[in-house]
Amino acid sequence: GTAVQGFAQQHPNIMLTKANIAAVRQGVAKYPLLRSSFNEVKQQADRAIAKGIDVPVPKDGAGGYTHEQHKQNYQSMNACGIAYQVTGDKKYAAFVKDMLLKYAAQYESWPQHPKKKSNQIPGKIFWQCLNDFVWQVYTIQAYDLVHDAIPAGDRATIEQHLFMPILHYFTNECKETFDLIHNHGTWCLSAVGMTGYVINKPDYVQMALKGSAKDGKTGFLAQLDQLFSPDGYYTEGPYYQRYAMLPFVIFAKTIQQNQPQLQIFKYHNSILSKAIDASLQLTYTNGAFFPVNDAMKDKTFQSEELVYGVDIAYADIKSQADLLDVAKQQKRVMVSDAGLRVAKDIAAGKAKPFQYRSAWLSDGNKGDEGGLGILRSGPNTDQQCILLKAASQGMGHGHFDRLNLLYYDNGGEIFSDYGSARFLNIESKFGGDYLPENKTWAKQTVAHNTLVADETSHYGGELKNAEKYHPELLKFAASEQLQVISAEEDHAYDGIKMQRTSILFKVPGLDKDLLIDVVRGLSGKDHQYDLPFWYQGHITDQSFKTNVVTNNLKALGKKDGYQHLWLNSQSNLHNGDDHITILNNLRFYTIHIAADSAMQVKLVTLGANDPNMDLRTEEKAFILSKPKAANQTFVTVTETHGRTDPTGETTTGAASNVSDLKVLKDDETQTIFAFRVKQKAYKLTINYTNKNNFIQIN
Amino acid sequence: GTAVQGFAQQHPNIMLTKANIAAVRQGVAKYPLLRSSFNEVKQQADRAIAKGIDVPVPKDGAGGYTHEQHKQNYQSMNACGIAYQVTGDKKYAAFVKDMLLKYAAQYESWPQHPKKKSNQIPGKIFWQCLNDFVWQVYTIQAYDLVHDAIPAGDRATIEQHLFMPILHYFTNECKETFDLIHNHGTWCLSAVGMTGYVINKPDYVQMALKGSAKDGKTGFLAQLDQLFSPDGYYTEGPYYQRYAMLPFVIFAKTIQQNQPQLQIFKYHNSILSKAIDASLQLTYTNGAFFPVNDAMKDKTFQSEELVYGVDIAYADIKSQADLLDVAKQQKRVMVSDAGLRVAKDIAAGKAKPFQYRSAWLSDGNKGDEGGLGILRSGPNTDQQCILLKAASQGMGHGHFDRLNLLYYDNGGEIFSDYGSARFLNIESKFGGDYLPENKTWAKQTVAHNTLVADETSHYGGELKNAEKYHPELLKFAASEQLQVISAEEDHAYDGIKMQRTSILFKVPGLDKDLLIDVVRGLSGKDHQYDLPFWYQGHITDQSFKTNVVTNNLKALGKKDGYQHLWLNSQSNLHNGDDHITILNNLRFYTIHIAADSAMQVKLVTLGANDPNMDLRTEEKAFILSKPKAANQTFVTVTETHGRTDPTGETTTGAASNVSDLKVLKDDETQTIFAFRVKQKAYKLTINYTNKNNFIQIN
Ligand SMILES: [Zn+2]
Ligand SMILES: [Zn+2]
Repeated sequence: GTAVQGFAQQHPNIMLTKANIAAVRQGVAKYPLLRSSFNEVKQQADRAIAKGIDVPVPKDGAGGYTHEQHKQNYQSMNACGIAYQVTGDKKYAAFVKDMLLKYAAQYESWPQHPKKKSNQIPGKIFWQCLNDFVWQVYTIQAYDLVHDAIPAGDRATIEQHLFMPILHYFTNECKETFDLIHNHGTWCLSAVGMTGYVINKPDYVQMALKGSAKDGKTGFLAQLDQLFSPDGYYTEGPYYQRYAMLPFVIFAKTIQQNQPQLQIFKYHNSILSKAIDASLQLTYTNGAFFPVNDAMKDKTFQSEELVYGVDIAYADIKSQADLLDVAKQQKRVMVSDAGLRVAKDIAAGKAKPFQYRSAWLSDGNKGDEGGLGILRSGPNTDQQCILLKAASQGMGHGHFDRLNLLYYDNGGEIFSDYGSARFLNIESKFGGDYLPENKTWAKQTVAHNTLVADETSHYGGELKNAEKYHPELLKFAASEQLQVISAEEDHAYDGIKMQRTSILFKVPGLDKDLLIDVVRGLSGKDHQYDLPFWYQGHITDQSFKTNVVTNNLKALGKKDGYQHLWLNSQSNLHNGDDHITILNNLRFYTIHIAADSAMQVKLVTLGANDPNMDLRTEEKAFILSKPKAANQTFVTVTETHGRTDPTGETTTGAASNVSDLKVLKDDETQTIFAFRVKQKAYKLTINYTNKNNFIQIN
Repeated sequence: GTAVQGFAQQHPNIMLTKANIAAVRQGVAKYPLLRSSFNEVKQQADRAIAKGIDVPVPKDGAGGYTHEQHKQNYQSMNACGIAYQVTGDKKYAAFVKDMLLKYAAQYESWPQHPKKKSNQIPGKIFWQCLNDFVWQVYTIQAYDLVHDAIPAGDRATIEQHLFMPILHYFTNECKETFDLIHNHGTWCLSAVGMTGYVINKPDYVQMALKGSAKDGKTGFLAQLDQLFSPDGYYTEGPYYQRYAMLPFVIFAKTIQQNQPQLQIFKYHNSILSKAIDASLQLTYTNGAFFPVNDAMKDKTFQSEELVYGVDIAYADIKSQADLLDVAKQQKRVMVSDAGLRVAKDIAAGKAKPFQYRSAWLSDGNKGDEGGLGILRSGPNTDQQCILLKAASQGMGHGHFDRLNLLYYDNGGEIFSDYGSARFLNIESKFGGDYLPENKTWAKQTVAHNTLVADETSHYGGELKNAEKYHPELLKFAASEQLQVISAEEDHAYDGIKMQRTSILFKVPGLDKDLLIDVVRGLSGKDHQYDLPFWYQGHITDQSFKTNVVTNNLKALGKKDGYQHLWLNSQSNLHNGDDHITILNNLRFYTIHIAADSAMQVKLVTLGANDPNMDLRTEEKAFILSKPKAANQTFVTVTETHGRTDPTGETTTGAASNVSDLKVLKDDETQTIFAFRVKQKAYKLTINYTNKNNFIQIN
């Protein structure tokens, strides 16, 4: 059972534990990665001591002086706590003690934060309570680390005048958040539960695990049950999953140390382990998270959250040698029991390349609300990877990009996603917040590589509508020769069924898999169907005559993102097999297009109607466009081929080996198309309604 | 004396020499870099043998089948020659022998190449004789390598029916080129001289060294006297210097092996050594050559020419430990005596960081035709570097970019150069040749970071005019606190004197040097003065109100490159101290501008009037523009500051520490300006006519 009586009080007992201190000290001397990681922590601690203690009365909002100082304070305390345990130097413990006493002397007298907003629960230290939760998650670790070096009287002061009032505030004033099945709730209850363990208040631990009513309807266990899909996917997307994981990992580790009998890492089919694994599988080989929804594109698995995740997954869950590969690329470990294990095994040469795999990651806590399809081919050093986004909306940060397709190769993006329109923390750009263009551009459907009907966005760009529905998986299969992901979305547009089938196909005689992509819009009425491909690189060849606008460049449309597109060229396709060749990072990509006479290609660049120059104007797309049709099927076969060698000044394999792409049949249940590779003919049949024989190759 | 009697005949005796074969064999087993380099050569040799011998009758022009096959043949023979010496396996020698016999059986019967052009001397194997020279430079090395494994009778056949006719052709039909003080001449005489040494024809060696008349007016020594400046700079620019060096290095090494008494590496104040050093100093820390003139921007010191240069400089000229750093980055060595030395010393850990330095590299063979000024600050891992181009025109590949300024930092370009407009070897892009936009855009002045008068290019964009004049150096000095390069150009425009003074200034309290740049146009008449800054990154802040064109984007001008610019915004500057902040690769660059009320800022992007989509549309500039003035001085102070950390999601140092930039006085002989750094005032005086007190700081 989970009944809590009180805990065997020993300190420290969270990330760094009493029994392991000696080993960690030796490890710092012996293992390069632990040493460099500790040196960074110690420098941070030394800088903090050099600067002195500053605990100002809370006053400023995000980015302001008191906000940044209190943020700095928990980081400094945590660094000093670790430095104390590793060096044994009491000055570090004294710094934490003195700072905590300063907080204890004032905390109760502080009112709710003066910068509070009417629609949010404020903190006392920060303008929103979330920041107070985070503060406490780190501060209680610092306290645990120096606990035994603080005189009993001071401990009583700190616990009575700081931590107990905090527990009270979080479980009363913040009760609504505490009981919320939501990431903010995770931080809140983690702070409460960790504090309960460290200062021995079993009642608070119980609330953290089972909700304020202790009935299990909310609380940590309920969150583990509900916030991840059975495959470990978090609905807001990879960028948010990374962040959402952190309090789960930290609190779970704390539970594991204090109540190992709960077997928290095995709870709910080892859901935390799955979530850590999923977050790694949601990256390309360069470590970058797939930037679907509002995402900063430069975010990689090097971020601190994944350092925690990987170290604890390796040390506390399952010691998979390929996690060490990620840890090596993270270039640091936690200075902790787990970090010691990781650094030691890396030093012993145990790392193996991270095992990326093709996967369907379902969305929804029952796994029945669509998901993300990932297909991969080739070694980590040169991997082809496609992502098909068939997940649900993913709350307020979701983009209107149902059945969006991303293609990665050669270490980077080929068919790319804009991510969010935001200069994070750049004050001069809209205060570092989301730019207006995040809504007018980044979230709109045309900003993505998916079907747009009538130049309008999916679900009219309305969150409420979009949250009601999710795509359905039609097929996921990954064999050596052929990998396929297929999904359907029936509600993005009234009366239009959207289907996308994306395939990695290994053809004898070609170095790289063909990317075959079939996108359909099926309707009873006529529509304009656009299929954009946002690409990285430079077009070096195309089969059709371009009509490039050489002056007086105009915006393509008026709204739903089209107002931000410059229309650079518009052409009618007339051949049976058209193509566009792109050169990117010394490699060629030829997109073969099965076109009929009425199809157009529009070449666009980004940047129209952008008065504040917020958009990245280097973004480029070709849009396959059918002006008017009830049903439209776009078939493309993308060959990845050849290379240019700037050192040797040679170019090889510049010509595509694919030819004669043609749609032979297309109806409600089937698409049949054919092409040749080096003259050998291939015929593919997609049987949309036959899972057992979904793709047929002749 | 240099009288040649005949040479002690031993083989091989060029890159790989008989006395060193055993050591190289052991080295391949012992030293990783030599091993991997040899493995590549051996694979090439094995592939050649697997494919078999093909010596077709010459027929096709560049890129065609016979052209590519004959190119392949000399590479295959050279690889087999090396493979024979290292492995001792006679099949490699037999391949070379058999192929040479095939050539010997046909060469005399081949007429001049059928694809010859009226204005060029043809080869017999290739459409232009240059390719024949290159063929022979490599082929004679292959012959030397397998010489002792070829029966005497076959050797006689090869020498009598291939090499002697080649010597005859190169010194008779190609006599004009042979005696030319020009890069083609270097290849021609190197082929002749090397062949003379290997088959013991001293007369031809003498001609190679002293010209066909053997009077020293032409030939290799005269070329060494005339083709490089005293500082080792080659007038066409870094990209061409790299290529031009190769026959010099190969032939010099051959001379050194056969006539060490000539001390060829010490000839003309060790000019070859200076040229190799200069070519390395003409790179940024990422290895990229400064892309002035027609240059492919991805060319680095990893190219084969510099592998030869670095290995021979280290082994035969001076064993500077920092050359090993370059060799490491090249990731390969020659499989030769020199490569052995380099690989061995790298394996012994002797490499030191390459010693980049600030330098004035004079142009012209007397060093009095301007030059390139390079200022550097900081370690190779994070170096600030500026290049001021004050060299002469540099022949037909020169750009009209007098006093162009490039700025590098943080591993890449900040103020950048377009390089040439060309997709090298990409058949679909104008046959891989220079694009029409190379002339209409890349060569034009506005494509560069330098002064443009009246929207016209320097020297009217006419090579003949531009070749008559060169800029003059006003000052070069590089102390720890302040480095300066200043130059003047009086003939780019009739009646306008152009001056530019660029400074790296180390200010206490700032992490990075300030880049201070003063550009002046002085004239008796009114002109429009434009000063473009082509930058990498995204503008995140500016002091002035932009007027962004949100639709109907128009070209800025009609000709001289202006027709290719989209005018995105135009603003009047009104403050004393205006600025633009750019975020690039996680770092900020704030350009402070001393503006008076009549100055404008135009924001432009590239891509107008580009019907074939040849241009890189991601290029962006801000142009400081004075609509009408007789004299105009542009003063900018660029601060490199702060960083954003996407992993930690923090931004520091986003605000510039520089303020109050103001021009206090500006006349014929002086510019005086002032600014503050963190409130501390600085006043700088440029005394244009006083070299001894050129910059004064108060
Ligand atoms: Zn998106
Ligand atoms: Zn140029």
